[in-house]
Amino acid sequence: MTTYKIALLPGDGIGRDVTDAAWAVLERAADIGGFSLARTSYPWSCDYYHQHGTMMPPDGIETLKTFDAILLGAVGWPAKVPDSVSLHGLLLPIRKAFVQYANVRPHRLLPGVQSPLKADAFDILCIRENTEGEYSGAGGRVHQGADNEVAIETSIFTRKGVERILRYGFEQARARRGKLASVTKSNAQKYSMVFWDEITQALAREYPDIEVTSYHIDAMAARMVMAPESLDVVVASNLFGDILTDLGAAIQGGLGFAASANINPDRSAPSMFEPVHGSAPDIAHLGIANPIATIWSGAMMLDHLGEKAAASNVMTAIEATTARGIGAFPGKDKTEAITTAVLSALD
Amino acid sequence: MTTYKIALLPGDGIGRDVTDAAWAVLERAADIGGFSLARTSYPWSCDYYHQHGTMMPPDGIETLKTFDAILLGAVGWPAKVPDSVSLHGLLLPIRKAFVQYANVRPHRLLPGVQSPLKADAFDILCIRENTEGEYSGAGGRVHQGADNEVAIETSIFTRKGVERILRYGFEQARARRGKLASVTKSNAQKYSMVFWDEITQALAREYPDIEVTSYHIDAMAARMVMAPESLDVVVASNLFGDILTDLGAAIQGGLGFAASANINPDRSAPSMFEPVHGSAPDIAHLGIANPIATIWSGAMMLDHLGEKAAASNVMTAIEATTARGIGAFPGKDKTEAITTAVLSALD
Ligand SMILES: CC(C)[C@H](C(=O)O)[C@@H](O)C(=O)O
Ligand SMILES: CC(C)[C@H](C(=O)O)[C@@H](O)C(=O)O
Repeated sequence: MTTYKIALLPGDGIGRDVTDAAWAVLERAADIGGFSLARTSYPWSCDYYHQHGTMMPPDGIETLKTFDAILLGAVGWPAKVPDSVSLHGLLLPIRKAFVQYANVRPHRLLPGVQSPLKADAFDILCIRENTEGEYSGAGGRVHQGADNEVAIETSIFTRKGVERILRYGFEQARARRGKLASVTKSNAQKYSMVFWDEITQALAREYPDIEVTSYHIDAMAARMVMAPESLDVVVASNLFGDILTDLGAAIQGGLGFAASANINPDRSAPSMFEPVHGSAPDIAHLGIANPIATIWSGAMMLDHLGEKAAASNVMTAIEATTARGIGAFPGKDKTEAITTAVLSALD
Repeated sequence: MTTYKIALLPGDGIGRDVTDAAWAVLERAADIGGFSLARTSYPWSCDYYHQHGTMMPPDGIETLKTFDAILLGAVGWPAKVPDSVSLHGLLLPIRKAFVQYANVRPHRLLPGVQSPLKADAFDILCIRENTEGEYSGAGGRVHQGADNEVAIETSIFTRKGVERILRYGFEQARARRGKLASVTKSNAQKYSMVFWDEITQALAREYPDIEVTSYHIDAMAARMVMAPESLDVVVASNLFGDILTDLGAAIQGGLGFAASANINPDRSAPSMFEPVHGSAPDIAHLGIANPIATIWSGAMMLDHLGEKAAASNVMTAIEATTARGIGAFPGKDKTEAITTAVLSALD
């Protein structure tokens, strides 16, 4: 029997609630599917930081490297540790160290879930560059505190970084409805975004079967709200993808339903699966967090591990659950009730 | 009788259609209000570029400087002149030369207009920094075309630039419902956005009557869709404001209803008023462009000139028109029919 080694990082706040729930579902799906999941949990979090002075041990990345995949809850608890420390000490280093350059986020409405939009038939796959660009961390400040203070923040785009994320997008488009939207702002950012557009055009010649359209980020944000059904695969930079996927989460009913995968497409290191939502300290451990986004992220993990049947079993169970109205309304059902319903819908 | 000198820049595409319509309404409102508007039109546009090799004459800025305000249609016709030339040759130089640092865009639903959202009761004033930040134009590329090519784009924020736009936002919040949302991404952009947050906090101490909240741009994009009624004044950088105002346009029914003002709050140079929409070459001169956004921008111009009664007369006429269903549905009514209806609703 195949066994997959999974590192579980519950993280902070509701992270534990939702990863416990997702784990129960994934284990059952593995039993049914005839494979097994071996988990090792690590308590790396803001509490860990208070005990050890770092968000994870010095060999944290080495430790995680030996796993087949990582399932993460949520990182951050601003009242305990500033985000600049917690996120840059755990979440972001993993994404970078393991070259998880494709942050993949599906946006569609689960049955029974209410969108804030009148439109309800859309199925968008957002692919966000996850390692460079606007979040490169380069910049500085001069004349601090003075009248003439200046802060600069430099976006760094490499050909390798842009090419690989776009190529990943083209491949996903080929496996879906054959449409790729590339998002830039090349009329106002003449270096980075013109570069991105050029690489998109070059790759488009390699994928003549894919219908490629370039959009400005402002127009794309409007389109996701006005005509979401017109979109298939959307590829965007780190910042633009960050914004569009929160918008995607909004139109699919909220962060409680937004799953994500941080993929290393070359499989040279483990990929990481996490809900888009944060740690929501205000409702931590009350047993009321919605685990759907994490269970869905877990289904993406099974799919990535090659367990396609088990992945679709989990997705079908999620859909059967929300279709019955369970877990479909923010704040209505308890974590346990939703988990139980998903478990009983597995087959 | 007071006479205001207005420079009219129809620009490209539907720019002429909508500025003609708006002008008819503004002139009638001036007659009723007992003041007069003297217009001078300039044909600066992509066609002008083909005749003269520049988007405006060398003394264009000097010429415009003598006016009380500028009303602009739309700039750009990519099939004739690349955006990088047309926008950077006309629209953007005016915003910068006249220190129109506050790009002000109201987002609310006109009566009779359909939002893509289920929510319909919101009234947001977005204030976008209009002169620096992510659109500073600084950057470069090295190793062009090679495997190791790198493109960088540098955002430049100055204390003066950030302080003045936030201060303008605080003043607007004071004149409205007393709430200010400041938008950054300080957990991922540690120089520019932390700088912006610090200045927000310092100014908040000067305005203890204003309720200030900081949001990350991703969370704000989601909030505009999920809880737009919770927002009052939203202040954001050049890029973030650009994105949020297209999103604002979307939730208010589309670009046909999105007005804007490029304000020089110090009145050291003229301010400029323009619809958010572009030149829409595909429907240019067909007489079917919706002039509502431009008429609304014209009302903002009257307000800025100090003609408050005339400004509200125009707004009331717009609302009476869309409430009757005229101009309220994209593509339904002709430019002339909408204009006639607004004219007849003035009193
Ligand atoms: C917490 C933050 C650094 C993170 C990001 O921007 O990557 C989050 O917003 C996300 O979308 O995963
Ligand atoms: C055309 C473009 C340069 C412009 C901008 O980004 O300022 C437009 O998108 C706007 O919002 O006015």
